[in-house]
Amino acid sequence: MPHYTAIELQDFAHSIINALGSSEEQSKIVAEHLATSNLAGHDSHGVIRLPQYRNHVNEEKIDPKAEPKIIKETPTTALLDGNKAWGQVVAQKALDLGIKKAKNNGLSAIAIRNCYHIGRVGVYPINAAKEGLICQVHCNGHGVARVAPWGGTDAKMATNPISVGIPTREDPILVDITTSVVAEGKVRVSLNANKDIPEGWILDKTGQATTNPADLYEGGTILPFGGAQGHKGYGLSLIVDLLGGVLSGAGCGFMTKKFGNGVFIQLTDPTAFEDQDEFLNRVEAYKTYIKESPTQDGVDDILLPGEPELNAEKARVKTGIDLDGGTLVQLNLLAEELGVEGI
Amino acid sequence: MPHYTAIELQDFAHSIINALGSSEEQSKIVAEHLATSNLAGHDSHGVIRLPQYRNHVNEEKIDPKAEPKIIKETPTTALLDGNKAWGQVVAQKALDLGIKKAKNNGLSAIAIRNCYHIGRVGVYPINAAKEGLICQVHCNGHGVARVAPWGGTDAKMATNPISVGIPTREDPILVDITTSVVAEGKVRVSLNANKDIPEGWILDKTGQATTNPADLYEGGTILPFGGAQGHKGYGLSLIVDLLGGVLSGAGCGFMTKKFGNGVFIQLTDPTAFEDQDEFLNRVEAYKTYIKESPTQDGVDDILLPGEPELNAEKARVKTGIDLDGGTLVQLNLLAEELGVEGI
Repeated sequence: MPHYTAIELQDFAHSIINALGSSEEQSKIVAEHLATSNLAGHDSHGVIRLPQYRNHVNEEKIDPKAEPKIIKETPTTALLDGNKAWGQVVAQKALDLGIKKAKNNGLSAIAIRNCYHIGRVGVYPINAAKEGLICQVHCNGHGVARVAPWGGTDAKMATNPISVGIPTREDPILVDITTSVVAEGKVRVSLNANKDIPEGWILDKTGQATTNPADLYEGGTILPFGGAQGHKGYGLSLIVDLLGGVLSGAGCGFMTKKFGNGVFIQLTDPTAFEDQDEFLNRVEAYKTYIKESPTQDGVDDILLPGEPELNAEKARVKTGIDLDGGTLVQLNLLAEELGVEGI
Repeated sequence: MPHYTAIELQDFAHSIINALGSSEEQSKIVAEHLATSNLAGHDSHGVIRLPQYRNHVNEEKIDPKAEPKIIKETPTTALLDGNKAWGQVVAQKALDLGIKKAKNNGLSAIAIRNCYHIGRVGVYPINAAKEGLICQVHCNGHGVARVAPWGGTDAKMATNPISVGIPTREDPILVDITTSVVAEGKVRVSLNANKDIPEGWILDKTGQATTNPADLYEGGTILPFGGAQGHKGYGLSLIVDLLGGVLSGAGCGFMTKKFGNGVFIQLTDPTAFEDQDEFLNRVEAYKTYIKESPTQDGVDDILLPGEPELNAEKARVKTGIDLDGGTLVQLNLLAEELGVEGI
């Protein structure tokens, strides 16, 4: 398979987004987001999305020239309407606004409605941590649902991720988790490969445990994470809906037919509480404290949340990023159609 | 077993706390907290704690006359020093301060260090929701640790609860969960009863799964919640430490010998984003949407987070609260010692 650098992917994505009618600024935000996701090993949120994005532009689900609108604003808060703009543009502009407010006021929170898919959620807390800020993102899905309430059989919630970033002297600590056991994509991969899935991932339409991935697509549901304590993942999924979808007015699950993300971003400036040096010293001491635990048999290292992605990134900086043949064909067809250079 | 009303328990607790030297105001806060915990079915955080509290006053771990001190303050934030006061007094006063700030500025966050045990964490988001505010509490434990990092064998984190309350037109939605599979107390109950515990609760000192509760007390650890996805519970536990313990300066796990809770309270006024009526209408619509899911076999109702405790409360309002004979003897000995009326 051909190998690409992140910059090559970003330049290619930039020219595609630009050709779809977006400004240089918007093209840069979306392209950087996609290439960064590839670099971190999240290929499902990388340049593979471009043909789908083009389709959604054609279907007028995305307006490549639109900008998010501020509906309501205070010195610490804002409610944004995504206004059919790129999800990554909306979320990054919301974050930039929140960063400014948090630096001025110690805290900020931005709610977003009418927002297209914002991509890999972890990108935003990482960007905030680079500015020295703590960032919590609750990001629901609406127009889609895969997860049943605890004890129920009907899909009501999306996989509803929570993403939290904490600045350190080195790379941020990043907790970036779905509140479901797995993302739907992983079940589909097993279905396509004609393989069973592990126990504890899904229920069939009657609420019985099953390892047959096809059951998900016949009225089944993905379980909230937590195993026997799945009521905890269920509770967290509801909080994501209540902050991301209800407070923002975006909507939740099948309460709306409109597909997208309802987002709630909270930013905290640690210097409102403590001198920055002292805070970062404590964070580093905590990292050392956690990592010095002996490991279980077969485990090489204690990893902090976010380290697996950072390790993938370091490896891919060296080896480059693989794109499979099928994806390459699609991307080059798209480039040809839009009259930009292929990859 | 004798049955008591919550008011009877509160009056008794009030007279004990008062006799230990606390003001009427402080006695009311602690007594109400304990009785409310009993009423919600959390007897482990109720009046059973009084003899332990008296001991900790004698050992000067609690100063029954102290008040928390504000160390650093902005219009949206504050850092509080618990100053050896009752944990419930410190946390409730922090909450009251945060409520005032959030009502003025849309958001607030209060960090607390040097704080004794704050009791049942869910009480604070409930109190905030009664004021119409969304409340997130990250509460770590320090001077104590039971949970190993994912893949590790050494206890590094406490059971580190997260508690989130959302106002509704009726009772608040309350997610109130430890980030470990179980609280340590449940393992101890099985040990005392000479019973095995379920698989997936603890590891022994070498990091092997075990169902023998004694293994926990011989260098074992409680697992972070999440089952096969325990790395998610681990990540959330770290966030509790980083917000509750690191940002506040309280400390985390065995990084300090001082026993207590490091607390981070975040408050959000929904009216900063949306008209209150409209917000509450949406919350009610969401509750209905979730609860209308059909149930799995053997499940009566879809419950929202917080409902099990509310149901316990409704039952106990009718039946009264049981106190077992051993607890009663201890409480009445304490009353006699302090010269107050027994129960």
